[in-house]
Amino acid sequence: MFIDSLIDAIKEKNNPSVAGLDTRIEHVPDFIKKPLFDKYGHTMQAAAEAITTFNKFIIDAAYDIVPAVKPQVAYYEMYGTHGMQSFYDTVEYARSKGLLIIADCKRNDIDSTAESYSRAYIGEVDIEGTTHRAFNADCVTVTPYLGDDGIAPFVKDCKEYGKGIFVLVKTSNKSSGQFQDLTLANGKKLYEEVAEYVESLALETAGSYGYGEVGAVVGATYPQEAVVLRQIMKHAFFLVPGYGQQGGSAKDIAGCFNKDGLGALINASRSIMLAYRNERWKDKYKEEEFYKASREAAIAMRDDIVSILK
Amino acid sequence: MFIDSLIDAIKEKNNPSVAGLDTRIEHVPDFIKKPLFDKYGHTMQAAAEAITTFNKFIIDAAYDIVPAVKPQVAYYEMYGTHGMQSFYDTVEYARSKGLLIIADCKRNDIDSTAESYSRAYIGEVDIEGTTHRAFNADCVTVTPYLGDDGIAPFVKDCKEYGKGIFVLVKTSNKSSGQFQDLTLANGKKLYEEVAEYVESLALETAGSYGYGEVGAVVGATYPQEAVVLRQIMKHAFFLVPGYGQQGGSAKDIAGCFNKDGLGALINASRSIMLAYRNERWKDKYKEEEFYKASREAAIAMRDDIVSILK
Repeated sequence: MFIDSLIDAIKEKNNPSVAGLDTRIEHVPDFIKKPLFDKYGHTMQAAAEAITTFNKFIIDAAYDIVPAVKPQVAYYEMYGTHGMQSFYDTVEYARSKGLLIIADCKRNDIDSTAESYSRAYIGEVDIEGTTHRAFNADCVTVTPYLGDDGIAPFVKDCKEYGKGIFVLVKTSNKSSGQFQDLTLANGKKLYEEVAEYVESLALETAGSYGYGEVGAVVGATYPQEAVVLRQIMKHAFFLVPGYGQQGGSAKDIAGCFNKDGLGALINASRSIMLAYRNERWKDKYKEEEFYKASREAAIAMRDDIVSILK
Repeated sequence: MFIDSLIDAIKEKNNPSVAGLDTRIEHVPDFIKKPLFDKYGHTMQAAAEAITTFNKFIIDAAYDIVPAVKPQVAYYEMYGTHGMQSFYDTVEYARSKGLLIIADCKRNDIDSTAESYSRAYIGEVDIEGTTHRAFNADCVTVTPYLGDDGIAPFVKDCKEYGKGIFVLVKTSNKSSGQFQDLTLANGKKLYEEVAEYVESLALETAGSYGYGEVGAVVGATYPQEAVVLRQIMKHAFFLVPGYGQQGGSAKDIAGCFNKDGLGALINASRSIMLAYRNERWKDKYKEEEFYKASREAAIAMRDDIVSILK
């Protein structure tokens, strides 16, 4: 089961955080990208290969620190088919290092179309009796606007293949309240209504720690809402964006955890990936050692989060 | 502008419909796929190439009938990087035949991530000063759960590159009401609240026919809601799924149009793609002529829709 494996890895590494891989070509140091530009020109292929190499450095630097990585699929789609190859290669490399992979793709559709998205990331694809995996992630993010028709096909694959999903409930962005915070006639907020649905799916898919294969995305930037959501979704693990770069602090995420010290996986992307540009490290490491700053940032984040769990 | 080009094409072909390309390998006739399986085995590459060939037959059969095609990206992602190559090739081929391309991908994310999705489909990607298009669609579908942070980056590209988006408002599936139909404290339904937001964006991006580059997805299966939504979103074109296979009839979609006879683009996917398996055509054409059934289905759909506009 994804959720049991995730919790095992969190306990083993004493670290409930995940490193986001939101790599754009602008993030990649010259020593990686320049030889590829020289070879292929300023092409999608060069960009995609540079991103894969960058990701491998980050994975090598952090795989014994973090339990999981979260590549954001948008940044790979942006580089076309070469970018999707980079996504594929990144997933395979992270897997070879024993990491769990959360494909952050926020997919959503209905019935057989949702089924196809699910198969693409956490299920299997059948070609005349031969099964394949398109992108072999352990977990995906999904968007709930279409209701259960859009979620059920993913839940089916979670059960069949031991995979997980995180459903968007309360996102970390400034305008997340525009629709999510609307008050309903029954007095609840829309995000609470979505949360109740997610909790029912979490219960239905609960593993040996009591958490479900179906979890929730809850932004670090809304700590008060997180406390309410923690009460509604007792069996749902939270994937928590918004720590670091987006302004959420360790204190802000405290309410995302349960009393068992579990229940949340905190994401940081740019603050780990781009640590080498941070004031704290930019003079400490040469460009070729950029990944050492990422490793230190991942350790600092772990220690920061663990400190509030004591 | 996308919306002006779409309306010009609708007028020229006297046909406000779009052919969905939701191709799975199971849909492809043996005479196309068997030689590819013989050559490559039951691989993703064989499946993807078979799907591209199938799509080209459908495009050749219908490009003078329909103004646009709507490939559903899930069905291409399912076949991995080869599948995305098939999506790319399908888009390029449709473009070479003068068709407009709506990439049905229902993407959603925030800020720079939404920007990356937008660049992937309707914008441009910069690699050290060289610009590329990852997938050169004219329009994409997007999901509104994250609020304006998730939509604004797409709207920016609509304005910059003359492209369009359709925002999910009221979808065609059975469970679309689970969240979309929730009644708010202000007495409105959630889909009405989303509709008001979409109308504001449509007005902001209106072209020479008065319709905006920002439109709405409104399902054919909810005709009463469509009438209400037509009133709220006077300047938004509707992309209407659910006709045919999902049960919506020409009568059901009448309310999606404005009095000018414009305002809606009706989608059919399987009823056109798989017409060769329909009782009406399955004995009329040999397998190698399957596309002729698709052409007749596209013509029949056009005539059905045009009849209710008189």
